Parts: sequence; structure tokens; C-alpha cells
Amino acid sequence: MSSSNALTPVTLADVEEASRTLAGKVVRTPLLESPLLNERLGGRLFVKAECLQRTGSFKYRGAYNCIAHLDPAARSRGVVAYSSGNHAQGVAAAARVFGIPAVIVMPSDAPQMKIDNTKAYGAEVVLYDRDREDREEIGRRIESERGLALVRPYDDRYVVAGQGTTGLEIADDLAALGVDPDALVVPCSGGGLIAGTATGLKSRFPNVAAYSAEPAEFDDTARSLAAGTRQSNVPGRKSICDALLVGTPGKVTFEINKALLAGGVVATDAEALRAMRVAFEFLKICLEPGGAAALAAVLAGQVPVKGQAVVVVGSGGNADPAMFARALAQD
Amino acid sequence: MSSSNALTPVTLADVEEASRTLAGKVVRTPLLESPLLNERLGGRLFVKAECLQRTGSFKYRGAYNCIAHLDPAARSRGVVAYSSGNHAQGVAAAARVFGIPAVIVMPSDAPQMKIDNTKAYGAEVVLYDRDREDREEIGRRIESERGLALVRPYDDRYVVAGQGTTGLEIADDLAALGVDPDALVVPCSGGGLIAGTATGLKSRFPNVAAYSAEPAEFDDTARSLAAGTRQSNVPGRKSICDALLVGTPGKVTFEINKALLAGGVVATDAEALRAMRVAFEFLKICLEPGGAAALAAVLAGQVPVKGQAVVVVGSGGNADPAMFARALAQD
Repeated sequence: MSSSNALTPVTLADVEEASRTLAGKVVRTPLLESPLLNERLGGRLFVKAECLQRTGSFKYRGAYNCIAHLDPAARSRGVVAYSSGNHAQGVAAAARVFGIPAVIVMPSDAPQMKIDNTKAYGAEVVLYDRDREDREEIGRRIESERGLALVRPYDDRYVVAGQGTTGLEIADDLAALGVDPDALVVPCSGGGLIAGTATGLKSRFPNVAAYSAEPAEFDDTARSLAAGTRQSNVPGRKSICDALLVGTPGKVTFEINKALLAGGVVATDAEALRAMRVAFEFLKICLEPGGAAALAAVLAGQVPVKGQAVVVVGSGGNADPAMFARALAQD
Repeated sequence: MSSSNALTPVTLADVEEASRTLAGKVVRTPLLESPLLNERLGGRLFVKAECLQRTGSFKYRGAYNCIAHLDPAARSRGVVAYSSGNHAQGVAAAARVFGIPAVIVMPSDAPQMKIDNTKAYGAEVVLYDRDREDREEIGRRIESERGLALVRPYDDRYVVAGQGTTGLEIADDLAALGVDPDALVVPCSGGGLIAGTATGLKSRFPNVAAYSAEPAEFDDTARSLAAGTRQSNVPGRKSICDALLVGTPGKVTFEINKALLAGGVVATDAEALRAMRVAFEFLKICLEPGGAAALAAVLAGQVPVKGQAVVVVGSGGNADPAMFARALAQD
């Protein structure tokens, strides 16, 4: 039996409240499976296609829920966020829906399409050097200087609750199929999506074993779960999984993940590219490298599928065409 | 006002019955839109993502509905179908669900992945030469020699009714959004998908202008609609839209389309590739060239979007990786 989540910082009640806030505002993304892929794997593999979410990733759920819960007077002055690109687009697009200004702090090496799209949603983009500057500090400075509300990428109750609606939707779809899931695997950077999704899914299926999926060498959550305390990554490493490069688990999210997760798995860049190709071939969806990390870890055999029902979240699809072409060239 | 469909060979009652037959058997595909793409177009463009359907195209709906309505004794002997690839996979996969044999007659120049997948679903594949042999004759011979039931690709009441469930789902989603659509554009080969989808959608939104979308030089339905009688294509032409190469509208489907459609539009191969790229970039879905034909015609300006609400069906996603790479290389 898994732990109860009654004592974690984000409860089922928070996620259910977020579901009501987001109703009709987000895409009810499908839970896809491929009979041919299942046959190869000898089990059932479900992919929650959050790449089809507004702005191309799950981030919109948390961003919208967070902005919706700001004090209206504070909200009207606008919001600021720091992000490698998907939270950036989520916050920019949600801010536009609320008709408020948004300033987004992004690393200068973020994929061009993520920078372009964030600007296209009407946000002001401030670039920083990922290796030499502290995005949180820049965010806090803009927050105080301009009187904007900071929308944190993961360490926020409303953000985690918003991402958690993903888990409730998965639970509804599995229940309709009569499937009791054995495992849940979710791409993980700061840990908000896995924290929220596990909170939502385990409320209905308490026995599901939930795993974070991270890029190899960016496995801070996996190591933190094993150690029982928050561990950091060695700085300066590179991965094509640009969405999953946060160096240390969030405080709020790690408290949840420590209570709910069975452990963490990892995927190499090559495995992520291969998973993008598999998602193209069998599911007809476009995943970005980080969005394919959970699928990659499962296809690499880190979570058994044979005779099991395994759910992975395909968390984002904002791949540059050149990156997607690399994935297509995989065997 | 558009014509009533009460007198067409497939009625709303047939489509509603198909909906009950297919409930829980098909993917409830999402109706996607992109705020950024809408902004560029100055209107709302909705894409029904049937590439996410089982077997990667809408064909599964009709194939399953048709097989479900066969006499059980006849059904148990198995089915035969002729198809360029998507109906092939749909029939093969549905036959497997019913536990019956399937023989599929396919052109030898069909995309390799379509042939491979059809075999992977357990079907026996018989190849023929598209330019020199008559697939209908081969299908009929196998039907009579082996005592198999022929599942027609479009000229069948149950097939059209099954595809028509696409239209009812679009209608439900638009109603939930409070959107009254101005136009519907659907890829067209034999005409089953547009016939069914128009029947379903116009039952709720009778004023929607429905258009078939065909590859340039394969515009038999567009010319037939203009002439009022069934016209054929000039043989020997080529297009990358391999799913849309039927030479003459179906009898059953043309009777429906003549009653319900406002006209037909066309897309060049270059426009189809460009639409695949747009679907990748803004919607994170993989379309094949034929599946992108309606989107292509709309993006090429053949159906106005400015100030309008336009629905296109993205009917299939079974593109070979090399073809998708060509689409990614578009501007």
C-alpha cells in the first residue's frame, strides 16, 4: 500500500477544485494506446497526450489555475515567471486570456520556437545565461521592481493542483476502460507534474506505483527519493531534454513526491529521441525530448510493461523541427 | 439554408446507431485549435484529430461498424477489403477485435508502413499494380472464391454511418464551446468521410457549408459536384496524398454529397506538406499528406477563415518518416 496523501501540501481537494476552475479552459487530452505497440511490449501502455494541451504542454493547467487564484487587484498588475520555455508559454497564454501583462525570464539557449511563441502570446521576454545567472533572483527582482505577481513553475500549491487535473483525467479514462493501472511514469524537472498527477491518480488507484522520469545526469529527484533528502545535480551538464534541467527538486513538490512516489527512473538523450520516434509512429503525436522522457524510460525497460498496465505522461510537444527530424532518423 | 438529409441513403438515425455501436471501441479524438494559429488566420480554425484514431485514421470507425453489422455466421468466415492503406489497417484491426480472418488487397506502391501495419494486425495482404489491375475485381474474386464478406471502403451504409460519428463528436464539442461553425472541410477520396461527417454535423448545424478537399488533379468529387453527375479523374497522375487517389466518387457517397455539400476544394502536394508542418508546429499532431488535404486547402485560402469558425478533419497520420521529414523541411 502506498502512503496517504492527506498530509501532503497539496490534497485531492485542491486538485478537484482546480478541475472545476479549469473546466472548459483546457484541452481534455486523450489517453492514447496502440494495439501494435502493446503487442510488442506484451502489456498495455497508455500515453496521456499533454502535448495536445494549449501551448503544447501541461504547463498551461498550472499557470491558468495559479493566475485564476491571484487576488484580482494584484492580478491586474500582471505576472512574472521564469522558465526554460513551456511554463513560459503557459503563463504567457494564460495571462493573455486574463488580459494582463506577463514578463517571462528565459534562458538564452532555450529552443527558438519556445522563445518565439512566448513573445507571440504577447509576453515580454527577458533572456538570461543559464550557466552564469540565477533565474529565480532575476524573477524576484522583476517581481519587486515592477509589482508583478510571481507564477512559480512548480513550488506553488495552485500550480501543482492545476497539473494534478492530469491525474484525475487519467483516472476517469482508465475507469471507463475498466483498467487498474500498475505504474505511472511522468517526466520530472522541479517535480510539479508528477506531484500533482500522482496526487490525482492515487486518490482513485492507491496501489499504482508512481515514478519520476528524468534525463540521465539530471536525476536529482531520483537521487533525492533514494536519499530521503533533496539532492542537487552537478552543474554544467547538457541534455536535449531542455524542459527537464532544474537542478534540485522543489521544496513543496519533494514533500509530496517523497510521500507518494515509488522511485525515479532516467532516460538518455538517445532514448528520448527513440521514444519521440515511437510516439510518431504508433500514436501520431509530436513529443519534445523532455516530454518523451517517461516513455523513453519505459521503452528502455526501466519500468516493466509485460503483463502490466502502465501509464506515461507525454508532457510536451514543443520540439524544433530540426530536433524532430533527428528523432525521425532513429531506427 | 442547406438541404435536408432525410432523403439521403444514410440518415442521422444510422449515424446515431453507429455511435452506440462504436461507444468505447474508438478513440474520442479531440477537436484541437491553436490560439497562435487562430491569430494568424484572423478566425477560429478547429482540427478534428482523427490521426489519433485507432490505426491512425478515421477508417477504423467505418470498418468496425460495418463488421459489427455483418450476419454473425457470415462474419465468422472472415472479411476481405481493398485499400491503399488506411481502410486496410482499419479493417485488419477491427477483424482482429472480432477474432475473424481478414484478406486485404493493397497497391504495391502503398507506403511501406501501411503494408507492414496491415500485416502486423494479422491480415493476409495481397498486392496489386495500381495502374494495371482492378482492385475491385480482385476483391470480388477473393470474396466469392473464399466466401469472405467484402467490407467496402466507402460505398456502404454502415461504413458511411461509422465515419459519420466523427461529425457528431465535432458537433458535441462545438456545442460545448458555444461555437456555431461556418464551414466544414474534409479530405475526400471515395467520399465516405465527408458524406458521414456532413450528415452528422449538419444535423445539429444545418447552415454549415461543407466542402470536400482533394489533391489537385484528383478532384473528381469537386468536378462531380459542379457538374451534378459523377466525373472521373484522368488516369496515371501522381500525388503524395496516397490515401486520396480513388478515381470516381462512390455511388452512395455522391448521392449524399450532392445533397449536402456546398462544393469541393483542392490542395497541391506542396500545400499538403506545408499543412503537415503547420499541424506539427501548432497542434503537435502527425498528419499524412492526404490527412492534411483539408487543412492545406484552408491554409491556401480556398475557404475563408477570417472572422469565421472553420472545422477541418485531419483524417489520417500514417506518414512514413521520410515523408514527414520532407514536411518538417518546409518553411
